[in-house]
Amino acid sequence: MIRKCITFIAFVSLLLAGLGAWAQNKIVVFQSDFGLKDGAVAAMKGVANGVSPDLKLYDLTHEIPPYNIWEAAYRLEQTVPYWPAGTVFVSVVDPGVGTSRKSVVLKTKTGQFIVTPDNGTLTLVAQSLGIAEVREIDEAVNRRRDSRQSYTFHGRDVYAYTGARLASGTISFEQVGPKLPAEVVTIPYQPAVREGSVIKGSIAILDVQYGNLWTNISGDLFNQLNPQFGDVVHFTIFHKGKQVYKGDAPYCQTFGAVAKGKPLCYVNSLLDLAFALNQGSFAAVHHIGSGAEWSVAVSLTHRK
Amino acid sequence: MIRKCITFIAFVSLLLAGLGAWAQNKIVVFQSDFGLKDGAVAAMKGVANGVSPDLKLYDLTHEIPPYNIWEAAYRLEQTVPYWPAGTVFVSVVDPGVGTSRKSVVLKTKTGQFIVTPDNGTLTLVAQSLGIAEVREIDEAVNRRRDSRQSYTFHGRDVYAYTGARLASGTISFEQVGPKLPAEVVTIPYQPAVREGSVIKGSIAILDVQYGNLWTNISGDLFNQLNPQFGDVVHFTIFHKGKQVYKGDAPYCQTFGAVAKGKPLCYVNSLLDLAFALNQGSFAAVHHIGSGAEWSVAVSLTHRK
Amino acid sequence: MIRKCITFIAFVSLLLAGLGAWAQNKIVVFQSDFGLKDGAVAAMKGVANGVSPDLKLYDLTHEIPPYNIWEAAYRLEQTVPYWPAGTVFVSVVDPGVGTSRKSVVLKTKTGQFIVTPDNGTLTLVAQSLGIAEVREIDEAVNRRRDSRQSYTFHGRDVYAYTGARLASGTISFEQVGPKLPAEVVTIPYQPAVREGSVIKGSIAILDVQYGNLWTNISGDLFNQLNPQFGDVVHFTIFHKGKQVYKGDAPYCQTFGAVAKGKPLCYVNSLLDLAFALNQGSFAAVHHIGSGAEWSVAVSLTHRK
Repeated sequence: MIRKCITFIAFVSLLLAGLGAWAQNKIVVFQSDFGLKDGAVAAMKGVANGVSPDLKLYDLTHEIPPYNIWEAAYRLEQTVPYWPAGTVFVSVVDPGVGTSRKSVVLKTKTGQFIVTPDNGTLTLVAQSLGIAEVREIDEAVNRRRDSRQSYTFHGRDVYAYTGARLASGTISFEQVGPKLPAEVVTIPYQPAVREGSVIKGSIAILDVQYGNLWTNISGDLFNQLNPQFGDVVHFTIFHKGKQVYKGDAPYCQTFGAVAKGKPLCYVNSLLDLAFALNQGSFAAVHHIGSGAEWSVAVSLTHRK
Repeated sequence: MIRKCITFIAFVSLLLAGLGAWAQNKIVVFQSDFGLKDGAVAAMKGVANGVSPDLKLYDLTHEIPPYNIWEAAYRLEQTVPYWPAGTVFVSVVDPGVGTSRKSVVLKTKTGQFIVTPDNGTLTLVAQSLGIAEVREIDEAVNRRRDSRQSYTFHGRDVYAYTGARLASGTISFEQVGPKLPAEVVTIPYQPAVREGSVIKGSIAILDVQYGNLWTNISGDLFNQLNPQFGDVVHFTIFHKGKQVYKGDAPYCQTFGAVAKGKPLCYVNSLLDLAFALNQGSFAAVHHIGSGAEWSVAVSLTHRK
Repeated sequence: MIRKCITFIAFVSLLLAGLGAWAQNKIVVFQSDFGLKDGAVAAMKGVANGVSPDLKLYDLTHEIPPYNIWEAAYRLEQTVPYWPAGTVFVSVVDPGVGTSRKSVVLKTKTGQFIVTPDNGTLTLVAQSLGIAEVREIDEAVNRRRDSRQSYTFHGRDVYAYTGARLASGTISFEQVGPKLPAEVVTIPYQPAVREGSVIKGSIAILDVQYGNLWTNISGDLFNQLNPQFGDVVHFTIFHKGKQVYKGDAPYCQTFGAVAKGKPLCYVNSLLDLAFALNQGSFAAVHHIGSGAEWSVAVSLTHRK
């Protein structure tokens, strides 16, 4: 009797373990330059639901400027660290679709996966989170059935499909395909460096909704100048090496510290140095862009 | 034997209760002025998934015009009532981030929760749904670990984090923080009032996709004029008290009741009085805006 | 004793079966012309969550140009086939709201459901996936309670509500309402036809994010001209029957096969013939639109 009950307990426990598995973290986060006006993103999500209806599908953004690999790289770095280990990102900014760029899955040292063409998209995440392992997608098995005739939508037929299979546990990371050397294609850009009392770096991205300039100069590096709130920051902006703006702004803890429309310098939500106009667009007013071609030099005058 | 089986039943029931809890209504709905072009919204959702992967995360809108607290208030009133009790809204339109505005959670009398800076965002929901209780977020416990250095992204580090903890049952409403008086910061605006045969009110918002004018005059108040479909509605629009438009439109049950491009007056999906051009944009054609600065006066001529 | 344990097993099994049901494929996909700037989409999702918090709610797009039924029809055809059988689509592009158009649910021969006004939205899906059955929504039962006073938001009160009830199993397909003849309202358009060495068809849609022209000429039909990659495609574009563009483009397997800014002809992700500028917008540069009024004639010169 006891034995039977125990057998039954074991049986129920197995079932419960199975149920537990249903509640697993099966998250896929999509990024692309497709926009949200047509059905491309929905087709990718349909394919993912076809792999497993238990997945939770989210979006990073689909408003990457068309073919802008740098910005895809930046948005990944901005968000991947905030998602739990095991999350699968599918990033499709792919101007070289159909050419020889490799389709890969990167596992970061912090445990997230990124499914993407290896075209520079992984530049920043590989540097900041570290490469645990890179595998090339074996399209002989990890490609949607009946999709051979379509040459141009790898996002749906290879990347979304493989990402969903990985996130749902249909395949293991090893079953993605053969292991590659632990390196990725990298876009060259001006790193943040201190040269005496001057710090040089890139205007890595615009905080597009507001027109703020976000640099790649970390707050830690900037702190080597011993800034205090209220100090005057001198900054010069260059496009392809040519000076296009020179000005001053106070170093502030909050936007409210300066009047409406006035410039300020602050540490942004990624803990990097940034420049803004309070309730205005610095980028629009002063015609400043972002990316590898835009650099900045920063120095400081302490408040008396 | 029986006792053992009963003990086991109790044990299994507890497990099942646990499983049942997984299937609870654990919904978080996000609103902001961040737009969808960068990673800010995805970072908030990543933090929420880190709190609990069992949450269901939805969006109200992230296209609130930057810093427009009035519109954030209006969008909440437009949608909160349609979501089940227990739903947690996280609204981040926060021009005063870093200043002394309080971070609060409002529980409405209908059982929804709203996590937000208390800067006017709660103006309309507090009036229409009623305040059950307001609590201030205790950031000593309800703030993402390791986020102290970042001054500007409370949306991710405080609001999304607290909203996810509340929705997932990680904390109770009481554990949000200390109870405040049952009141919120309120934006002043022209209420809808009847003065004899004239009704005054605000153009509360534009139905932006179509350019329709939505007033804060309820269909019930308008009904005090005994309107019949086909009656002529006279309406005058003021900006900062100055008349900017005067015209007539038939009171209609459907847009199809007038020719393409013609004006009509109708009761919208929120059961408020509205003005539109059939398949056209009243706001664009006649340069009309919305918000506390825009008011309207309405009267009626009955069809003969 | 054994009997008690067995009774208990049966009881637990029933519970587990119930738990299993929670993990069912309960997917609703929304499409509309509402945009994402206001609360209309969120109100629909709130209503759906009120029906059942276990649904998984996704978006096709909400950026259909206002009142553009043709484009709603096209986006459905572009995506429905990629979603599993049983998925419920709710499509609300409804210029005739409040008029006599019928509210229906179409079940395709591939098992997906589409909840929509029957105003042409089903034109293409009915042709390509086939009609299994059409039922008219019985608003006496399938309409949100307390929504009688609102005349203009059937998307929330009828379509989202009915779609959620169907997807969650609250009602069966039969309980939607009475069965109609297996036909839908259809928008007339130029079908793809071969006339000797010339193929005629429509420019069905723009790949809006990139400005590519997507025709309704299938790759299979085009293959009847025996094209080889590198062959020259001659194409003439007409608006309302009047010629507006005439040019040549190589037939390519990938965008990278032509220089930046150069035209190419290719088979798109829907396996239809398309025209594009590599990393440019054909539609913007040459002022080409799409829809029933735009047609194209195509012929071929083989590469020597």
